[in-house]
Amino acid sequence: MNGEGDSASVKVALLGYGTVGTEVARLLHEHAADFTARAGASIELAGVAVRRPDKHPDVPAELLTSDATALVESDVDIVVEMIGGIEPARTLLLNALRAGKSVVTANKALLAEHGAELFAAADTSGADLYFEAAVAGAIPLLRPLRESLAGDRITRVMGIVNGTTNYILSAMDSTGAGYSETLEEASRLGYAEADPTADVDGFDAASKAAILASLAFHTRVSAADVHREGISEVSSSDIAAAKALDRTVKLLAICERVNGAEGGEAVSVRVHPVMLPRRHPLSSVDGAFNAVYVEAEAAGQLMFYGQGAGGAPTASAVLGDLIAVARNRVAGGRGPRESAYAALPVRPFAETCTRYHISLDVADRAGVLSQVAAAFAAHDVSIAAVRQRGRNQDASLVVVTHAATDAALRSTVDEIAKLDAVHEVVSVMRVEGGEP
Amino acid sequence: MNGEGDSASVKVALLGYGTVGTEVARLLHEHAADFTARAGASIELAGVAVRRPDKHPDVPAELLTSDATALVESDVDIVVEMIGGIEPARTLLLNALRAGKSVVTANKALLAEHGAELFAAADTSGADLYFEAAVAGAIPLLRPLRESLAGDRITRVMGIVNGTTNYILSAMDSTGAGYSETLEEASRLGYAEADPTADVDGFDAASKAAILASLAFHTRVSAADVHREGISEVSSSDIAAAKALDRTVKLLAICERVNGAEGGEAVSVRVHPVMLPRRHPLSSVDGAFNAVYVEAEAAGQLMFYGQGAGGAPTASAVLGDLIAVARNRVAGGRGPRESAYAALPVRPFAETCTRYHISLDVADRAGVLSQVAAAFAAHDVSIAAVRQRGRNQDASLVVVTHAATDAALRSTVDEIAKLDAVHEVVSVMRVEGGEP
Repeated sequence: MNGEGDSASVKVALLGYGTVGTEVARLLHEHAADFTARAGASIELAGVAVRRPDKHPDVPAELLTSDATALVESDVDIVVEMIGGIEPARTLLLNALRAGKSVVTANKALLAEHGAELFAAADTSGADLYFEAAVAGAIPLLRPLRESLAGDRITRVMGIVNGTTNYILSAMDSTGAGYSETLEEASRLGYAEADPTADVDGFDAASKAAILASLAFHTRVSAADVHREGISEVSSSDIAAAKALDRTVKLLAICERVNGAEGGEAVSVRVHPVMLPRRHPLSSVDGAFNAVYVEAEAAGQLMFYGQGAGGAPTASAVLGDLIAVARNRVAGGRGPRESAYAALPVRPFAETCTRYHISLDVADRAGVLSQVAAAFAAHDVSIAAVRQRGRNQDASLVVVTHAATDAALRSTVDEIAKLDAVHEVVSVMRVEGGEP
Repeated sequence: MNGEGDSASVKVALLGYGTVGTEVARLLHEHAADFTARAGASIELAGVAVRRPDKHPDVPAELLTSDATALVESDVDIVVEMIGGIEPARTLLLNALRAGKSVVTANKALLAEHGAELFAAADTSGADLYFEAAVAGAIPLLRPLRESLAGDRITRVMGIVNGTTNYILSAMDSTGAGYSETLEEASRLGYAEADPTADVDGFDAASKAAILASLAFHTRVSAADVHREGISEVSSSDIAAAKALDRTVKLLAICERVNGAEGGEAVSVRVHPVMLPRRHPLSSVDGAFNAVYVEAEAAGQLMFYGQGAGGAPTASAVLGDLIAVARNRVAGGRGPRESAYAALPVRPFAETCTRYHISLDVADRAGVLSQVAAAFAAHDVSIAAVRQRGRNQDASLVVVTHAATDAALRSTVDEIAKLDAVHEVVSVMRVEGGEP
């Protein structure tokens, strides 16, 4: 920090100048007086590290550098990292934290893979590590989990945390179109990246789930612990089957406190598509919006809703952190440290039980239901409800199960698919929310 | 604080042992190990001040005292105030803060009336003043406004922050019953206090609106600045009129950044019933639940939803604050101080413009609409939409206005009520959300 009292200022290094970085710089400039009053110090942008300084004529030349390492090593107090990805972000942030410089980042992948290492570096030097923007963009979510609910026992966090997949599923639901053509349209409109893998295959949501589970349950969960299924297998038949049941398909990140081995506690952390009843509050979260449900023993049910991505919304979260970190620098004190004391095991997905909807096209004749039911019974999958509807020689048969493991369900479906009377397995999908 | 390092502990005085105080004590005991790990110090209940110690056989006798003043003056580090009301709470908390003891309170009335004095005392001694439980119970809302959104410019906060009135309005909506009988039923079921004045006349919501506006706009708003209308004038005709328009009636606290005198900024803070479109997210918040919408320039729209009252939910918020305050004590540092630098004027309600729905029973004959329209024009109230529906000799006429002041609207309605062709002014109600 330079100076004291009224003249206090904190120097900020901005790494990366994409959509979010641009907004952070713009708002820092536009609201400078407000931010000074709120932080108790003026927040000065001391440098902006970009790959190609010549590509950013809008940034004062004296701030631009292509040497992020040197910028981090200069006399800055806070490093705001907007580069994304693992390297060089990891090395840059470790260097910053080890040198006692506080870090604000939105880098979910880095936190989900190397969070422990970053927290340890922050702890050793007494620096702050803030990352509200890493999950659910503008929605204040991590601070509530980390601080507001610190006096409670969170049992479940379930949310829509990826805007691209939510946009695609919403569009499939409203148009009836298939996955591939909807993805193409989403790319054309800028709702999906040129390489959409991180989003559609669930990697982005899995990183966020790891971060949410770690904070909610005071334990350490990394991206590798998260069971991950994307949306590329979701077909228009799945969407139609959901519609017929007054349900909608969403890609959810689900973090649960569950029973572990030998009577202990464990956590289950997973990302996969589910059918939700249309009256479920998460069901009406459309397009690029995010929403997260939290259940805690004392607080009961909570929901947080807002924009999960975009330059300005993400910048809002980054700047909230930046002001908190600056205030800590000026006033003395630190934000919360990593809280992983509970050290809960992560239950393997194979042992995780969920409910399923299975939609089948079957021959409309006597005995079909009994054959299908026998297949479920053979694999110990308990049936909660069955609905059959004839149409000409075909019938549609919908089976809703009680909670079952993935393995048991797969074996059941494999057996059912081989039955003569079963023309097609139209849709197999997990179910959350509401009664079967 | 007693001791350092592993043996650090903070001593807590609990003032009041009602529904919330009981839960706070129970959870402190039940989750002691977790809370120690999260706060970095054991949190010890050092005393419980109640009016009648003999009425609390469940509390260890050595903790009980009827002398709250002495308990606050003893060697406690943190005072948790659950008494409510202005005195003796005000004097006790001022004494605590002046002595450098941090305070956690849910006392919205005290904060809305004497917040400035309390903040000043906290500031002088360097103590913390936390009050998440004062607004919207278990919902993490004040910390997000105070901290997460500190880097943004909040333009509007609008919410359902009183469970009793929301329960009554929800019940009137679903049963069609009148206000008085619904209030009686709510009292019988324990959803309304024996003396419901603070809730039904909007005092409770007004205190909360003052706190929300102060935090959202970095200014000082006290309860007296808040325009307040309760729900006792809401009739079954109003509810029926809302239903006919696919709307629902809610008591909202509304805090807005508005244009002030001479091109400056101001705030408008008010509590009154409004009609909301049924598709508005606040419209489906039923019973004792609370929900708050926040609009900020960068973040866009955010919503927070959860239980607004009750022992355990409120205790969740109190304990989150208690752990934060304990952590600050142990780690050094402080939470955010009062941020009132913006010092915005509060715009008088007379100058505040809102939209209205007016439902009239009129004679079904030519010329009526032109007489009614002339009355609106005479008072400069602009009409956005009109819907007329005949039934026998009567017709129902619904007028939706553009934004108008309360005074202009009242004069208009007074004139309309005198028209021969107008049989009855069925309902006059403000409107928020959606297109007219």
